[in-house]
Amino acid sequence: MSKITKTIKIDDKDLFGENIFRVMAGPCAVESRDQILYTADKLSKLGIEIFRAGTFKPRVDPETYQGAREQGLIWLAEARKDFGLKIITETTDLSNFDLVEEYSDIIQIGAKAMYNPALLTKAGKSSKAVLLKRHFGATVDEYLKMLKYITKEGNNSVILCERGIRTFETSSRFTLDLCGGAVIQERTDFPLVIDPSHSMGHSYGVPKLSRAAVAFGAGGLLIEVHHDPKNALCDSQQALNIDEFAKLYKEMKAIGETMGITVK
Amino acid sequence: MSKITKTIKIDDKDLFGENIFRVMAGPCAVESRDQILYTADKLSKLGIEIFRAGTFKPRVDPETYQGAREQGLIWLAEARKDFGLKIITETTDLSNFDLVEEYSDIIQIGAKAMYNPALLTKAGKSSKAVLLKRHFGATVDEYLKMLKYITKEGNNSVILCERGIRTFETSSRFTLDLCGGAVIQERTDFPLVIDPSHSMGHSYGVPKLSRAAVAFGAGGLLIEVHHDPKNALCDSQQALNIDEFAKLYKEMKAIGETMGITVK
Amino acid sequence: MSKITKTIKIDDKDLFGENIFRVMAGPCAVESRDQILYTADKLSKLGIEIFRAGTFKPRVDPETYQGAREQGLIWLAEARKDFGLKIITETTDLSNFDLVEEYSDIIQIGAKAMYNPALLTKAGKSSKAVLLKRHFGATVDEYLKMLKYITKEGNNSVILCERGIRTFETSSRFTLDLCGGAVIQERTDFPLVIDPSHSMGHSYGVPKLSRAAVAFGAGGLLIEVHHDPKNALCDSQQALNIDEFAKLYKEMKAIGETMGITVK
Amino acid sequence: MSKITKTIKIDDKDLFGENIFRVMAGPCAVESRDQILYTADKLSKLGIEIFRAGTFKPRVDPETYQGAREQGLIWLAEARKDFGLKIITETTDLSNFDLVEEYSDIIQIGAKAMYNPALLTKAGKSSKAVLLKRHFGATVDEYLKMLKYITKEGNNSVILCERGIRTFETSSRFTLDLCGGAVIQERTDFPLVIDPSHSMGHSYGVPKLSRAAVAFGAGGLLIEVHHDPKNALCDSQQALNIDEFAKLYKEMKAIGETMGITVK
Repeated sequence: MSKITKTIKIDDKDLFGENIFRVMAGPCAVESRDQILYTADKLSKLGIEIFRAGTFKPRVDPETYQGAREQGLIWLAEARKDFGLKIITETTDLSNFDLVEEYSDIIQIGAKAMYNPALLTKAGKSSKAVLLKRHFGATVDEYLKMLKYITKEGNNSVILCERGIRTFETSSRFTLDLCGGAVIQERTDFPLVIDPSHSMGHSYGVPKLSRAAVAFGAGGLLIEVHHDPKNALCDSQQALNIDEFAKLYKEMKAIGETMGITVK
Repeated sequence: MSKITKTIKIDDKDLFGENIFRVMAGPCAVESRDQILYTADKLSKLGIEIFRAGTFKPRVDPETYQGAREQGLIWLAEARKDFGLKIITETTDLSNFDLVEEYSDIIQIGAKAMYNPALLTKAGKSSKAVLLKRHFGATVDEYLKMLKYITKEGNNSVILCERGIRTFETSSRFTLDLCGGAVIQERTDFPLVIDPSHSMGHSYGVPKLSRAAVAFGAGGLLIEVHHDPKNALCDSQQALNIDEFAKLYKEMKAIGETMGITVK
Repeated sequence: MSKITKTIKIDDKDLFGENIFRVMAGPCAVESRDQILYTADKLSKLGIEIFRAGTFKPRVDPETYQGAREQGLIWLAEARKDFGLKIITETTDLSNFDLVEEYSDIIQIGAKAMYNPALLTKAGKSSKAVLLKRHFGATVDEYLKMLKYITKEGNNSVILCERGIRTFETSSRFTLDLCGGAVIQERTDFPLVIDPSHSMGHSYGVPKLSRAAVAFGAGGLLIEVHHDPKNALCDSQQALNIDEFAKLYKEMKAIGETMGITVK
Repeated sequence: MSKITKTIKIDDKDLFGENIFRVMAGPCAVESRDQILYTADKLSKLGIEIFRAGTFKPRVDPETYQGAREQGLIWLAEARKDFGLKIITETTDLSNFDLVEEYSDIIQIGAKAMYNPALLTKAGKSSKAVLLKRHFGATVDEYLKMLKYITKEGNNSVILCERGIRTFETSSRFTLDLCGGAVIQERTDFPLVIDPSHSMGHSYGVPKLSRAAVAFGAGGLLIEVHHDPKNALCDSQQALNIDEFAKLYKEMKAIGETMGITVK
């Protein structure tokens, strides 16, 4: 039997925990003030309580879009205030940790930073919740060991995230590892969310994987929603548009209901 | 949008197709007449219509259990007659193809035989339905090309099966590739079933993956159920017992219902 | 310390064994009588004693070239007679085993047939030497277990072959696994040859890997040489032309000499 | 044809370049002053000019040995002064970059830090040479893109290092990817060295891979040598002792000689 999922509170509200499937939605990247406020408005009206968007984007190719950086954080803070949303956004290394910590409700540590012990130690000293993604080349075993760099500093408000591993199969961007997810749930009591967008890499598969995540018994979703995917500055192939997401969100709620799980 | 799943009929009954989630259940291996008749009785009472069990088991290590062979087929035929079940059982190479074809309703071609063109060609000439498993080292692209060895001979009653690929992650037996599954559904209209037992390798993850398969929109399940898993002659770690399966079957039906899918 | 490599004799000649690095060269596929006799002539003049070419080629896509089949074997027999060469050629399944056994000096079992227990059992009953390739999805452990299907029948004239495994890296066709090669040499005393052509998939890397194989201490090479690679019917990107091969052969001999190894 | 390897100078001496195979040897970790001075003495007497040892060791499990840290750098500086060695040692993140830069001749960026853009940017601004290891989950393509984070800042004294990728094969620690190495040499002119110790994980395979690296045409080796491997504080299974290394060094020199390559 998997362990009972521990509760993660933010501002005294239970955001993650047993029988909660928490949906964190929003665009891959902060692109403009208008984009952020428009999307945050739409998603909060659907019922979404945690908004996601990255603003530090030092991607593999230094010649591609690198993010709105500090300005993006200010726009995210505006979305938090205007729509009562919680914000999750990503730190990539020590150089932007303090800013991300200041502006976010959940500090996201991306897959590529999972092996950065100094960054994890820093996150372990924070009073903010932390979402730690599994590196696409990390075994479950290594992932749960790196997690200890956070918890040994006293921060136990950690959300885990399976976002796809790198395998020989290249028709999808990565390979979502639900088997590994089952092992993680067996070995720890931290909530485990799924990232269907980065693993699949094609929007057509995202609703399938998202519904599967609910029925699997995951702790939630980190999902890319863009008001105009074709013109997104990054990861345009994998984002759902708002209508697609609204439909999916309803389907997920119905599945959750049959299982006694609140999807929100 | 994924393609509409084509219908696979056996004896004029629609066993696979759009909005059908077909559960094929039974033990990994035929062990004895009693085991087969007992399990077939229990499963048919739950509502299962297709019974699975392998009787030719030339496993990787030639010094392990090799199966009940022809005798096993006779017992399976008895189960078919007594309980009105359809039988799916595995052929491993040309040496046992004719026998398997004679006794089964669906000829299963296992992962390790996926690259055997002579065997696939032979199956293509059969009037029986064929379930072709994806090899754990095969890309989706290769899998769908090998499929043509069957269809070019005129047999279009083919069921595909994702049963886990081999990756660096070793905490599960294989890595169930639902991303690849989404690609397969996008590219073909053959029903795609999931094997949660072989991919996970630990029974604790099997209900999670099975429920996920329904919500994903797969075409069914090939799942190991044993009346006494601890004493199973093969794959004892991954089989559900009959009570565990009964509970899961009910959960899957409920999930299917919210989606307009009949789980049977 | 690795084990002492056992000697494999053919017609009372030691073709493989300790301190022998055996080069088996020739085209991927038999294309025509002229091609075979021309290439065999050239290679035998360089000193090559074992000629390779496949004539049963049921490749992944059934719509591509499928080989010269029985006719090809007759041309290979002609090359053997004219130039005193030994012949290695591939059987893909039981349907062509007897013919391949009759015409070849070494029966090659390709990677895709490694998991075929009936074929391996048949090869185990043959009096001919067998080269068993490692499947690109097989662990070393599985490979050495499948090997027992041959040896338990009494045939110990087996040559192993590492030809690349399937990994996430797609800039080469496969990933040559020399680490796995070292493990194989530690665990068995069968000669282990390397296939640099299939693993690399690009001719520019083939000389590098081939020289590496000598210095590594492998038991030889299975290498693709074509008189006109650009117009080869299969695997045209990875074959060396005859001049490139002649240069490489000389380099390998020099490296072998410093190590007390005869490259031939 | 692969590109001509560019020359990397340190203190006006050509340490890496066309027809140079550069051996960087030493223990995995700095353990004590005695250990460093003893090993440095022995290796410099053999002819080694670049000494390797890590002193910041925040490994995956935070409860294992974490390194001698700043004290280790002081001992390495002593070894440099006493034996005229160049020093290569590893930075793991921004928290220890400045110290490593100050004390080393070559700044090593380990596999786990390859995806850290802030660290690479910092290294790009240094006047010291940088060795950038390929992450075990990185494609060649990503690796060469991340490299640009260093070179776009103006630092072109970069040495690349293939140290094994993560694959399904677990009998070795990682899988040394020489095919990927050939692609790297085709696409760039930076020297590419091989790490046989981390890839293999067992000392018995290290000489095989090291000799292979010379014959392959690599630009050198980063190899673990320990005066007493059984009692090493980390990676004890994969280090050669000094006698084993001396024997290997001689063999590599002989192979290099036949190819017009200076091994030193």
